[in-house]
Amino acid sequence: MSTFKQIVLASRPKGAVVAGNFRLEDAPVPSLADGQVLVRNHYLSLDPYMRGRMEDAKSYSAPQVIGEVMIGGTVGEVVESKNPKFAVGDKVVGMLGWAEMGVSDGVMLRKVDTSHIPLSAYLGAVGMPGMTAWYGLTQIMQPKAGETIVVSAASGAVGSVVGQLAKLRGVRAVGIAGGPEKCAYVVNELGFDACIDYKAGNLIADLAAATPDGIDAIFENVGGEIFDACIARMNPFGRIALCGMIAGYNGEPMALNNVRTFLTMRLSLRGFIVAEHMDLWPEGLKELGTLVATGKLKFRESVAQGLASAPEAFIGLLKGKNFGKQLVKLV
Amino acid sequence: MSTFKQIVLASRPKGAVVAGNFRLEDAPVPSLADGQVLVRNHYLSLDPYMRGRMEDAKSYSAPQVIGEVMIGGTVGEVVESKNPKFAVGDKVVGMLGWAEMGVSDGVMLRKVDTSHIPLSAYLGAVGMPGMTAWYGLTQIMQPKAGETIVVSAASGAVGSVVGQLAKLRGVRAVGIAGGPEKCAYVVNELGFDACIDYKAGNLIADLAAATPDGIDAIFENVGGEIFDACIARMNPFGRIALCGMIAGYNGEPMALNNVRTFLTMRLSLRGFIVAEHMDLWPEGLKELGTLVATGKLKFRESVAQGLASAPEAFIGLLKGKNFGKQLVKLV
Repeated sequence: MSTFKQIVLASRPKGAVVAGNFRLEDAPVPSLADGQVLVRNHYLSLDPYMRGRMEDAKSYSAPQVIGEVMIGGTVGEVVESKNPKFAVGDKVVGMLGWAEMGVSDGVMLRKVDTSHIPLSAYLGAVGMPGMTAWYGLTQIMQPKAGETIVVSAASGAVGSVVGQLAKLRGVRAVGIAGGPEKCAYVVNELGFDACIDYKAGNLIADLAAATPDGIDAIFENVGGEIFDACIARMNPFGRIALCGMIAGYNGEPMALNNVRTFLTMRLSLRGFIVAEHMDLWPEGLKELGTLVATGKLKFRESVAQGLASAPEAFIGLLKGKNFGKQLVKLV
Repeated sequence: MSTFKQIVLASRPKGAVVAGNFRLEDAPVPSLADGQVLVRNHYLSLDPYMRGRMEDAKSYSAPQVIGEVMIGGTVGEVVESKNPKFAVGDKVVGMLGWAEMGVSDGVMLRKVDTSHIPLSAYLGAVGMPGMTAWYGLTQIMQPKAGETIVVSAASGAVGSVVGQLAKLRGVRAVGIAGGPEKCAYVVNELGFDACIDYKAGNLIADLAAATPDGIDAIFENVGGEIFDACIARMNPFGRIALCGMIAGYNGEPMALNNVRTFLTMRLSLRGFIVAEHMDLWPEGLKELGTLVATGKLKFRESVAQGLASAPEAFIGLLKGKNFGKQLVKLV
């Protein structure tokens, strides 16, 4: 194989992302310099944060450059190595982007053990999404046994882990998801105490019924009306981990109306990016890896086949069409 | 004197507070039981939190009961005592309400030293408002030297202390106040680095000019558009102490539009009530008392004369007509 496929950002979205914002290209397989590793990617991770990178706006990281390979987490196998720390055949997790292959200097590449944990899980429950859940729950929400938390996008890669970790700590976990199928999964498979279908049109009443003792902490992935409805039910000294606002990624207004509740209930809110807290990853990944390996932490994957399917899969993710962690299978 | 004047809540406001929501009454001077103290109040403190108590809404404290004496902080002098801890002539601070006299069992009454600190200051810079400023600054905003903070209602009893404490810590302090007279006072008398007149109609541009390096922490007393404009200029990891939202106390919409910034800038926000943190009062009051006694912490008072003037003074406070700490002189 002398070339491989990759996808670059062709243009910035105007409103919703469209397939034409991406371009599939052939790239030559490079020759390695000393210290470099060539990786054949097996799975690409699709995550909501990528939507933010497509904008040319002030945010926590630089925008994706037009014409360059789209950023993305990957797992794969080393196929050539001029780095003594990596051998051919090693399974690795890295950030090699929307591409079938990638070259790394080894700094951001991590060998993983697939004897008890599937390779793809390192992009989900035992990877960045799992750590996002773990950080928000343990560092910001800090629920005590018997308290009630609410998790939006509860069937997703992050939300599903938040609720399961909470249940393991004796916390009442209430999810919010779109549609009866996802809600059934959240309750019956993941073990949440309840799940509210925000598409059913009774968000406020359903939320009240599912949180009879109010809400002590929120893990927020969505923003907008759903977030506002949750804030209105917060108990004194409630904590909010603000992880994402996917409802507003196309520029939709995301106003919060229940701001007064932050004062009257003495709430705390913190926005966070898990990549800024790498010091806690070893502790978090240890718990997450053990739980996955022992079957105590469940996850579900939506797998698109082939790199060319990535744009449509990503557009679907932004609309909530995925069910669980969205991956693209590359081999 | 066999009777004294007191003001009770006559009715709850429908929108803005009006004088008719209060009723001036005569009350008999009571006979003391064992352990009780009779206090002649010298000053009544008027504070924005009282507006919240007038509502019959879920909040951090029970609503003011109709027909009962309005809640309020007071300083005064013991005129009769059946409590061994208090002697006639003692100067005391307490919560004896909108009344010329009051009876206390001594539990919530505190003797104060007026040899270096004026009695009225115990209702302001060395009292609840000063502690509110101290708590928000030192426990939530935690600015480092060289950082920039913004304080709304900067000429008020709380905001004026926030900025002065910040300046003593080497922090750039930018105030927001209504009108050129208040702004001149904030800069020239209190020593803030800049003050923005929100009534001048250039809030966003003026804020940008006064905070060229962005904003690292906010002390929020007002809410609404002013708060939103400040959030838009926050630096990464900015902290927000949410103390009050006086712009919305009559039920005005207080929506925040810049919610996405909480995520992109990884902001922290916490609403707080200083009365819930009594453990820190000794430390805070020690600093505040020393600064007032040595002239390093300045304050200004708006003094209304006589209990009957309290309703109009309170209505003025809610409209920003006061200049500094609003008091009512009772003797």
